[in-house]
Amino acid sequence: MIHDSSDVKTTKIGAGTKIWQYVTVLPGAQIGSDVNICAHCFIEDDVIIGNRVTIKSGVYLWNGVQLEDDVFIGPNVTFTNDKFPRSKVYPKQFLSTKIEKGASVGGGAVLLPGIVIGQGAMVGAGAVVTKSVPPFAIVTGSPARITGYAESINDIESRPSRLQEHSKNKKITLLGVGNAALHRLKLVQDMRGDLSVGEFPRDIPFEPKRYFLVFNVPSEKTRGEHAHRQCHQFLICIKGSCAVVVDDGETRCEVQLESPDIGIHLPPMTWGIQYKYSSDAVLLVFTSDYYDADDYIRNYAEFVDAAKERK
Amino acid sequence: MIHDSSDVKTTKIGAGTKIWQYVTVLPGAQIGSDVNICAHCFIEDDVIIGNRVTIKSGVYLWNGVQLEDDVFIGPNVTFTNDKFPRSKVYPKQFLSTKIEKGASVGGGAVLLPGIVIGQGAMVGAGAVVTKSVPPFAIVTGSPARITGYAESINDIESRPSRLQEHSKNKKITLLGVGNAALHRLKLVQDMRGDLSVGEFPRDIPFEPKRYFLVFNVPSEKTRGEHAHRQCHQFLICIKGSCAVVVDDGETRCEVQLESPDIGIHLPPMTWGIQYKYSSDAVLLVFTSDYYDADDYIRNYAEFVDAAKERK
Amino acid sequence: MIHDSSDVKTTKIGAGTKIWQYVTVLPGAQIGSDVNICAHCFIEDDVIIGNRVTIKSGVYLWNGVQLEDDVFIGPNVTFTNDKFPRSKVYPKQFLSTKIEKGASVGGGAVLLPGIVIGQGAMVGAGAVVTKSVPPFAIVTGSPARITGYAESINDIESRPSRLQEHSKNKKITLLGVGNAALHRLKLVQDMRGDLSVGEFPRDIPFEPKRYFLVFNVPSEKTRGEHAHRQCHQFLICIKGSCAVVVDDGETRCEVQLESPDIGIHLPPMTWGIQYKYSSDAVLLVFTSDYYDADDYIRNYAEFVDAAKERK
Amino acid sequence: MIHDSSDVKTTKIGAGTKIWQYVTVLPGAQIGSDVNICAHCFIEDDVIIGNRVTIKSGVYLWNGVQLEDDVFIGPNVTFTNDKFPRSKVYPKQFLSTKIEKGASVGGGAVLLPGIVIGQGAMVGAGAVVTKSVPPFAIVTGSPARITGYAESINDIESRPSRLQEHSKNKKITLLGVGNAALHRLKLVQDMRGDLSVGEFPRDIPFEPKRYFLVFNVPSEKTRGEHAHRQCHQFLICIKGSCAVVVDDGETRCEVQLESPDIGIHLPPMTWGIQYKYSSDAVLLVFTSDYYDADDYIRNYAEFVDAAKERK
Amino acid sequence: MIHDSSDVKTTKIGAGTKIWQYVTVLPGAQIGSDVNICAHCFIEDDVIIGNRVTIKSGVYLWNGVQLEDDVFIGPNVTFTNDKFPRSKVYPKQFLSTKIEKGASVGGGAVLLPGIVIGQGAMVGAGAVVTKSVPPFAIVTGSPARITGYAESINDIESRPSRLQEHSKNKKITLLGVGNAALHRLKLVQDMRGDLSVGEFPRDIPFEPKRYFLVFNVPSEKTRGEHAHRQCHQFLICIKGSCAVVVDDGETRCEVQLESPDIGIHLPPMTWGIQYKYSSDAVLLVFTSDYYDADDYIRNYAEFVDAAKERK
Amino acid sequence: MIHDSSDVKTTKIGAGTKIWQYVTVLPGAQIGSDVNICAHCFIEDDVIIGNRVTIKSGVYLWNGVQLEDDVFIGPNVTFTNDKFPRSKVYPKQFLSTKIEKGASVGGGAVLLPGIVIGQGAMVGAGAVVTKSVPPFAIVTGSPARITGYAESINDIESRPSRLQEHSKNKKITLLGVGNAALHRLKLVQDMRGDLSVGEFPRDIPFEPKRYFLVFNVPSEKTRGEHAHRQCHQFLICIKGSCAVVVDDGETRCEVQLESPDIGIHLPPMTWGIQYKYSSDAVLLVFTSDYYDADDYIRNYAEFVDAAKERK
Repeated sequence: MIHDSSDVKTTKIGAGTKIWQYVTVLPGAQIGSDVNICAHCFIEDDVIIGNRVTIKSGVYLWNGVQLEDDVFIGPNVTFTNDKFPRSKVYPKQFLSTKIEKGASVGGGAVLLPGIVIGQGAMVGAGAVVTKSVPPFAIVTGSPARITGYAESINDIESRPSRLQEHSKNKKITLLGVGNAALHRLKLVQDMRGDLSVGEFPRDIPFEPKRYFLVFNVPSEKTRGEHAHRQCHQFLICIKGSCAVVVDDGETRCEVQLESPDIGIHLPPMTWGIQYKYSSDAVLLVFTSDYYDADDYIRNYAEFVDAAKERK
Repeated sequence: MIHDSSDVKTTKIGAGTKIWQYVTVLPGAQIGSDVNICAHCFIEDDVIIGNRVTIKSGVYLWNGVQLEDDVFIGPNVTFTNDKFPRSKVYPKQFLSTKIEKGASVGGGAVLLPGIVIGQGAMVGAGAVVTKSVPPFAIVTGSPARITGYAESINDIESRPSRLQEHSKNKKITLLGVGNAALHRLKLVQDMRGDLSVGEFPRDIPFEPKRYFLVFNVPSEKTRGEHAHRQCHQFLICIKGSCAVVVDDGETRCEVQLESPDIGIHLPPMTWGIQYKYSSDAVLLVFTSDYYDADDYIRNYAEFVDAAKERK
Repeated sequence: MIHDSSDVKTTKIGAGTKIWQYVTVLPGAQIGSDVNICAHCFIEDDVIIGNRVTIKSGVYLWNGVQLEDDVFIGPNVTFTNDKFPRSKVYPKQFLSTKIEKGASVGGGAVLLPGIVIGQGAMVGAGAVVTKSVPPFAIVTGSPARITGYAESINDIESRPSRLQEHSKNKKITLLGVGNAALHRLKLVQDMRGDLSVGEFPRDIPFEPKRYFLVFNVPSEKTRGEHAHRQCHQFLICIKGSCAVVVDDGETRCEVQLESPDIGIHLPPMTWGIQYKYSSDAVLLVFTSDYYDADDYIRNYAEFVDAAKERK
Repeated sequence: MIHDSSDVKTTKIGAGTKIWQYVTVLPGAQIGSDVNICAHCFIEDDVIIGNRVTIKSGVYLWNGVQLEDDVFIGPNVTFTNDKFPRSKVYPKQFLSTKIEKGASVGGGAVLLPGIVIGQGAMVGAGAVVTKSVPPFAIVTGSPARITGYAESINDIESRPSRLQEHSKNKKITLLGVGNAALHRLKLVQDMRGDLSVGEFPRDIPFEPKRYFLVFNVPSEKTRGEHAHRQCHQFLICIKGSCAVVVDDGETRCEVQLESPDIGIHLPPMTWGIQYKYSSDAVLLVFTSDYYDADDYIRNYAEFVDAAKERK
Repeated sequence: MIHDSSDVKTTKIGAGTKIWQYVTVLPGAQIGSDVNICAHCFIEDDVIIGNRVTIKSGVYLWNGVQLEDDVFIGPNVTFTNDKFPRSKVYPKQFLSTKIEKGASVGGGAVLLPGIVIGQGAMVGAGAVVTKSVPPFAIVTGSPARITGYAESINDIESRPSRLQEHSKNKKITLLGVGNAALHRLKLVQDMRGDLSVGEFPRDIPFEPKRYFLVFNVPSEKTRGEHAHRQCHQFLICIKGSCAVVVDDGETRCEVQLESPDIGIHLPPMTWGIQYKYSSDAVLLVFTSDYYDADDYIRNYAEFVDAAKERK
Repeated sequence: MIHDSSDVKTTKIGAGTKIWQYVTVLPGAQIGSDVNICAHCFIEDDVIIGNRVTIKSGVYLWNGVQLEDDVFIGPNVTFTNDKFPRSKVYPKQFLSTKIEKGASVGGGAVLLPGIVIGQGAMVGAGAVVTKSVPPFAIVTGSPARITGYAESINDIESRPSRLQEHSKNKKITLLGVGNAALHRLKLVQDMRGDLSVGEFPRDIPFEPKRYFLVFNVPSEKTRGEHAHRQCHQFLICIKGSCAVVVDDGETRCEVQLESPDIGIHLPPMTWGIQYKYSSDAVLLVFTSDYYDADDYIRNYAEFVDAAKERK
């Protein structure tokens, strides 16, 4: 926000950019090409806007806001830059907001200051976003929670349930995302209790070197969000349920694990996310290798690049 | 939203309509008479506005928005027209939004695309509306839920509890809405358990041809929302509680069912709605006829017309 | 809102006040000095704005809005003045909204009509405020709930937990707010049950004339919000937990009571608030005097004045 | 128990009765024919024992005990005759105990004073019986609860589950007890809730004149225990579960109702018992006639006689 | 039990004692006067039996059993003297069992070794007693739990609820046990929570020197079981419920505390017991004096003597 | 029980056996040497009693009862031989009862017919035993449940908790039972949830060929009760808790598993039992071999012999 604007600055506006009626752009703002800024907007001087950005009406961009290429900002989206605003009381530094490449912010959403909206993410209309949003996550509500993942930037309409295709009769079902696959395990239920069985490497397709259990996960939490270079993983939700998103850098899908006789195999170079844990969920994971920090890719952009190279 | 406005169109604005400062109306918009459009609004070309509509400041109406007569749009209300907006990615058809006759949208509300706000409905200030709103419903919150029903457009202040008037001593209490009535049924409670009894056609005023049970209803769901031409219904909430709205096309009221010794008789040509189900609610319904799809009226406007004819 | 503006009124604008582009101020509005009104605002005629107020963009102030000195209104904050708005239907009197001295309203917040935001209060970004907010309270969410108390207008960043400083070894810990203090009481736990003990005036620092118990408090309720002129109070949360805010008119702090062996002594002239009651909370209070209505100060401004006098 | 035995009485012992070593029979006791009294028993003077009774070792029969024909008393069964015994303190009248025809009391059981064990009932070994036991009931535990019903005196070993025979494909399944039958009803489940439907007289085999609901039944309670002369009943457990015993005077069986799509039809002259209610059970009953006290047979012996006559 | 009986001992049997058929008394047993030992009993040599004791049939008294005056032992009561019996394996010392004056053991009860059944206590028929039983307590079940208190040895039939007599209109109700009394306290209930208030010494009849809270008491635990010589106590159950037995050495009664507006005043020389705590019970106690170990009487017999002296 | 005793049989009684007063032994009974049969017992003809058995008073042994060497039968223990006894109705074959070597049955216990009390087992006083009891198990209550395991016949007093000896710092703790050992696994807890990790064969001391999960076990159930000849097992209770008894044929101990970072390794030739499952328990088991029915030893006596051979 403007409290002191004594410096003289030069505004840059790219080719093909359209600015509508009743819009103020303060000197110094950096605006890319082919941008569309609708009526009734206001852009302060220390604002950076990439190429092909759309900004609908009633949006006011304060100092410290950065919109990367291909971002969409819906009407009446509210940006802020001070967590505890008081009139005439200025923090040493205003908090910045960054909307990464290809992300969209739905109409009427409110963004608390100091957050990043990740690449390809989607903020639902009317959401009140209090924390940073990971790449491709869909967040909605007040406060905003992750409620899904965009399958890809270009695959907007269809997110079929792969689990439904996993027929009762098939033991292994490829998910269409790299070589990730659902496996059906043996379940025996009798009066004394239930029994689920798997054998290595007959049922689980590798000799495990390591297992781990994930439990007591708060329902709004997201885990995973990384890929392995060499290590295989096999996930079984043995109590409660959770959702698993798998991504090979080109396509992605989501499956719901909710029975101890369903496992999911994540081969190397598969980006995996787990979320929507039920309160009683226990996730059992087998891995083909010992822990090796160098085997992890934790940056999505880096993962996409590495996945392309390997092909 | 405007992505391509090459056509030349003619704007129509009715008599008595007032448009304030800093308002843009694109050529082609259709605006009725006695409309009030406050400062800082924007109206795209493919927008239709009825008569006697009020639009407060900070409202941007995109292509596909239709406001019928007597609609009220509060300040900073956000309209949208794309469920999954991406910059420079256009759906084959933008989703439209329709606000029916006499409805109101409170200040700061956000309307997801593709919904209809029904006749006489009331969207609370700050609500995030994700689904269509039925006629006369009051919705609030994020996401918006039905929290009540406006008794009529002109009866804003008073919504007396009809149930309170149903004295312990009376067996049948007319609700003042057509011939709909509350019936008191026999309840016997002793140490061995409780017993509730009704007889046909002594207590339930018809010979039933059919019964059905409604249960496991999520608390935010609304059921019913239709009338029968010939069939009588008799509803008893035998476990938990729910609310029933009855409407004869002219007047309406709401009663809370929360005891198995209270039944409600809905004669033919009564529009009925059930909502606010408790998590354990079981609703028992007797009907005077077998199922007949032709006996249902599911459109409220059609019901109002049919109700008038019958008188 | 303006339905009838036939009177000619004179606008007053104080020295040092800055009004940006695309702002409308109707004749009759009263605006103080050193006010900052950003672009894209609208101010009706019957609006009063104090000194040193900040109003960000996209804010529309309707008749009946009063902003006291040092108020901050974030971007796209929505004011309303009619609980059940219908187009062309006007209530006998529009409801007014008052933002008291030093209060802030975060960006995108929506204020229902007829409420007061108390002195120094903080409405979170995106909050939907449906009830009046007490002095210094922090409210967030939809609908907005009290989630904290601002320690003071100038102490924004730090709200240390005083309870953590109450070491296991110390029996009494001054809170740094007047003479209010935490007391550690004796707790004996064994297989047959737990026992907590206190003696008068050895452990509780006065001879009690009265005790009272507070229980079954809905979690969103706030109690207390008053000071005593002569009476001492001693509070113990003997089941569940609650938070206590203590304030001597200059400084304030908040402590969490969650064990029957912790008591808090509120000497006379201490403003006390209790909130965040757990569902099973039972608060036991001893007082040094019998009930005397004249001993209560229930208005915070009056309390601050009285506290200054006493020094 | 003997506190005062001054009267001279004559003991009667029937033909074929065998009394073993170390048994005391006080003068005045009445013992039928073909009775077997094992070693180490004691029989006071005011005791009546029918024909063909078996009494195992370690059983002491105090004044007031009456054993009808064909009763079995296991070893170490304990009889009592004073609820609050104190040495040398005698109640005005000792409480009596009656074991009806054909009943059995398992070894080591303890019978509180003043109770009746009904015809054909079975008290489990080691049970502590604090209340009277209805005809044919099986009771076990401490304190004893009804855990089953003997199918008939002569059908000891087999109590097949008739419900298992009610295949998914059959709409009506006769139970082999008179004309009592299970009926399968329509169940529709979708996202909005579940729906169960039945039609009269298509699904329920009569036109109902009356319905009643039974709910809030404590789990240890037994209801019903009567037959109707003319009236049909149709029972559906629409929430939770309960067990229904049906008896035509010659054969009996038990079915578990636990789904709203299963109903049971009880034609006239069917003795019915419901028990083992789950805590949330709601039982819906349709009847073919209005309430008529004369239509009820509440005494099992009378029912058996009436059932025979009708054939 | 007899493993080794080489010593020659002399049996003593008092005047008026009656021993029935098939009873063995080993040499050395001590038996008082007016005792009644029914048929089929066995009494080892190191057994002591007081005056006026009744022993029903099937009772075997092993070495180490002591029955004080006026004790009643029902039929088939089982005594034991080894916690972990193995054939031919003898502990260094067999555990003894003592039944105190006036206590009764119902028929078929089993007593684990090493316990004391207190004065006037009542063991229910069929109970399995695993722990010592306090004076006048009534125990039932397997394992036996305290389920009541005998009001006095001679007041068998009537145990009226004194709480029912405490009418809504009376502020103080004497219990008829010394000067112990119920007090009604002020209770204010509204939407913001409930409030219960008391004033010293207006409502609570003394100036408190000490308070204590009792909570987290396991439901089967009994607390109190002592009297004070000088100290007053005032008990309020502010959450959940518990039962209080008051006893002045001559009469006793029991009241249920289950509301924070009911207090019970225990003046000096009142024997008090609290039991049947609900899982969430919190008991608040005010005392008129500081803690003084010498003020406690913890032995019931000593209390009865002291109470008589004081009169 | 004797219904027909026409055969002439010869009774055998061993040397050193003592039979007290009022005891009947029918011709044909087989009684070993050094047996002690107390007063008031009755022994039918088809009964077999081993050497060094103790039988206390009030015990009646029916046909089909077999007591092996060193058995202890407490006073008033009740044997039965007919599940559904009816007077003069005889089953084709009476059910037998077998008490294996060294077992004890506490006073007043009741044994349902047809069961086996395993070697070294201990039936608590007053227990009602409805099912067979495994070797060394301790059972109590009505109905009797396993509440512990006797560590060995001669180790009565001490059952130290081995788990307490498993210090926080040690990774592996031998249990002193063969090579069975507790293993500490890695546990990482943070705000996002908890994580437990183990590696093969680093942490789990073999390469697994198989895993299985045990869950939904009713709390009263006991599982395992077998040993493997070649296969290793590794057990982790990843949710809830259970107890594991390990036995190498000579010594035994019990550990409580209640945290996912504790595993127990059962090498070949370890007898294992799991019981006391909490309602939410999930037990994860790794095995070193595929399933092989021949690898199991399910008879405890056979296991003891095989264990001796291997040494």
